Amino acid sequence: MQALSPMDPSLLPVAYVDVEQAAARLDGVANRTPVMTSRTVDRRTGATVFLKCEQFQRAGAFKFRGAYNALSLLPEAQRQRGVLTFSSGNHAQAMALAGDLLGVPTTIVMPEDAPSVKLAATRGYGAEVVLYNKEEITREALGRQIAEARGLPIIPPYDHPHVVAGQGTTAKELLEEVEDLDVLLVCCGGGGLLSGCALTAKTLAPDCRVIGVEPARADDATRSFRTGQLHTVHNPHTIADGARTPSLGTITFPLVLQHVDAMATVSEEAILRAMFFLWERMKLVVEPTGALAFAALLDGAVEAAGQRVGVILSGGNVDLRHAAHLFQHLPGKTD
Amino acid sequence: MQALSPMDPSLLPVAYVDVEQAAARLDGVANRTPVMTSRTVDRRTGATVFLKCEQFQRAGAFKFRGAYNALSLLPEAQRQRGVLTFSSGNHAQAMALAGDLLGVPTTIVMPEDAPSVKLAATRGYGAEVVLYNKEEITREALGRQIAEARGLPIIPPYDHPHVVAGQGTTAKELLEEVEDLDVLLVCCGGGGLLSGCALTAKTLAPDCRVIGVEPARADDATRSFRTGQLHTVHNPHTIADGARTPSLGTITFPLVLQHVDAMATVSEEAILRAMFFLWERMKLVVEPTGALAFAALLDGAVEAAGQRVGVILSGGNVDLRHAAHLFQHLPGKTD
Repeated sequence: MQALSPMDPSLLPVAYVDVEQAAARLDGVANRTPVMTSRTVDRRTGATVFLKCEQFQRAGAFKFRGAYNALSLLPEAQRQRGVLTFSSGNHAQAMALAGDLLGVPTTIVMPEDAPSVKLAATRGYGAEVVLYNKEEITREALGRQIAEARGLPIIPPYDHPHVVAGQGTTAKELLEEVEDLDVLLVCCGGGGLLSGCALTAKTLAPDCRVIGVEPARADDATRSFRTGQLHTVHNPHTIADGARTPSLGTITFPLVLQHVDAMATVSEEAILRAMFFLWERMKLVVEPTGALAFAALLDGAVEAAGQRVGVILSGGNVDLRHAAHLFQHLPGKTD
Repeated sequence: MQALSPMDPSLLPVAYVDVEQAAARLDGVANRTPVMTSRTVDRRTGATVFLKCEQFQRAGAFKFRGAYNALSLLPEAQRQRGVLTFSSGNHAQAMALAGDLLGVPTTIVMPEDAPSVKLAATRGYGAEVVLYNKEEITREALGRQIAEARGLPIIPPYDHPHVVAGQGTTAKELLEEVEDLDVLLVCCGGGGLLSGCALTAKTLAPDCRVIGVEPARADDATRSFRTGQLHTVHNPHTIADGARTPSLGTITFPLVLQHVDAMATVSEEAILRAMFFLWERMKLVVEPTGALAFAALLDGAVEAAGQRVGVILSGGNVDLRHAAHLFQHLPGKTD
């Protein structure tokens, strides 16, 4: 932490008041997703566990919160012209849906080998999808070209204060519904959800420890957190596709340093076991990244016995046949 | 209906007061399962749809309600001696769990080729499992032999007044939470859930039409309902294994005749499409039988546009790999 202190205020642009305002914007638009409990999970972990189910969010993941908040805050002139983003994942669909609801044209740069179901869903919400070949250009470079040519602002998937504030409403809902949490487990890719939830927890439940969870194979944020220096990974080979992001961002890194208490990592097998458990025992369709935080609990990567533990299940957008294929590689039994 | 009237009162042993009393017994023991809604489902059906999610019930299906209610009502002497049942499906696990909670020893006759996961789950709750070879003996014959030898009462999967009353609490919760339903869709195997829910609806929401849903390949209850004569099927080839029961029972048939408004049937493909939709779009793991009632809605087997429609998703106990295998046989796209 010392490397970045004294903190430049411009690196900390998101405060809890922004989360509160985002919640007001999302009220009646985003789903207030259910918090589920399970005697089986409690018995198995020795903890009292509360699962915040963002797979039931609109467009199937927490990403809708940040996307809608960011588009709501655009000046009127920009709303009419539209915005651009790049994503092959849940942010694409979330932006497309939010744009559709708010009447903001969205242009989304996606790799040409993105799953057809995701391309179809994004187009289905009315977005213009621009495909690119990963061998020829990066999405950032192509995105900047198009944004400049058309005069469009870019709303990136996580490194944006209004996106972070929107994601923080996930923890706000959970902490308002469940009192006295000792621990809150949040998955971490680019850190939008983690930083938004951590800053929210520090206001609403200052005694609650916030722990970010990454795949061991994509542990850039864990290393960045522990060293105070930004570490990166490149195309990490993890089933948690939402955590393949190269690093924390310039907005999210300082927030993570300031508000997160610890980071934990989990193996690929632990992620898959957690996902299988959620599907088979809890009847919840959760994608690999969505099962990250729960994997840390189930795998014992964090100390939880006797504690009240909040876990954010971040999304459920996964090809069912692909998931079944993954399950076939699950060694042994799950319990 | 005329064939059975004037109704013999002994054929109508279950009244709404029994459901109310069952609800009191289940309070704090059974899960009050969530009712979920979806803009996507509403848009697609033109109706306002409320899904009662019994896949989140303890042991993964509504069956726990009836099993626990029936065991609770046993005289003390019988509770100590224990009970016997036969089931290869959700009733087995439900009875085993209810017996475990109430300290009632349970003996469960299951086919030796039952899925190992179900055998393990049933034994895991502490039940004694007696395996039988389908080629050599029927489960009913073996069950009667053991029950007589040990002096155990039999709690069958559906044809029992206390089981029916317990299942009726599903509709009670839904109708208390959601007002002014026009239609309630309930799957039908042996008719325990359907008759319990129908008699409940006729008290709590007399204007609500209750429609039972069967696979077209296992339409015995539909034919029985329409003719007033009990029809049977034998080992129908349907993926909805909970609806492979040979016929309605002596308790459930008169209740269905009296309280149900209509029956509908759905194709195997419609069941599979509904199940896929629930998993992929709603992120809900529902078994084939659990998707029956929703299939009738999605497939247009019932008129629903402009109406408020309750749908009971009855359970979620399905082998994930088997489900994925089924999905591979789904022709075309789902929407």
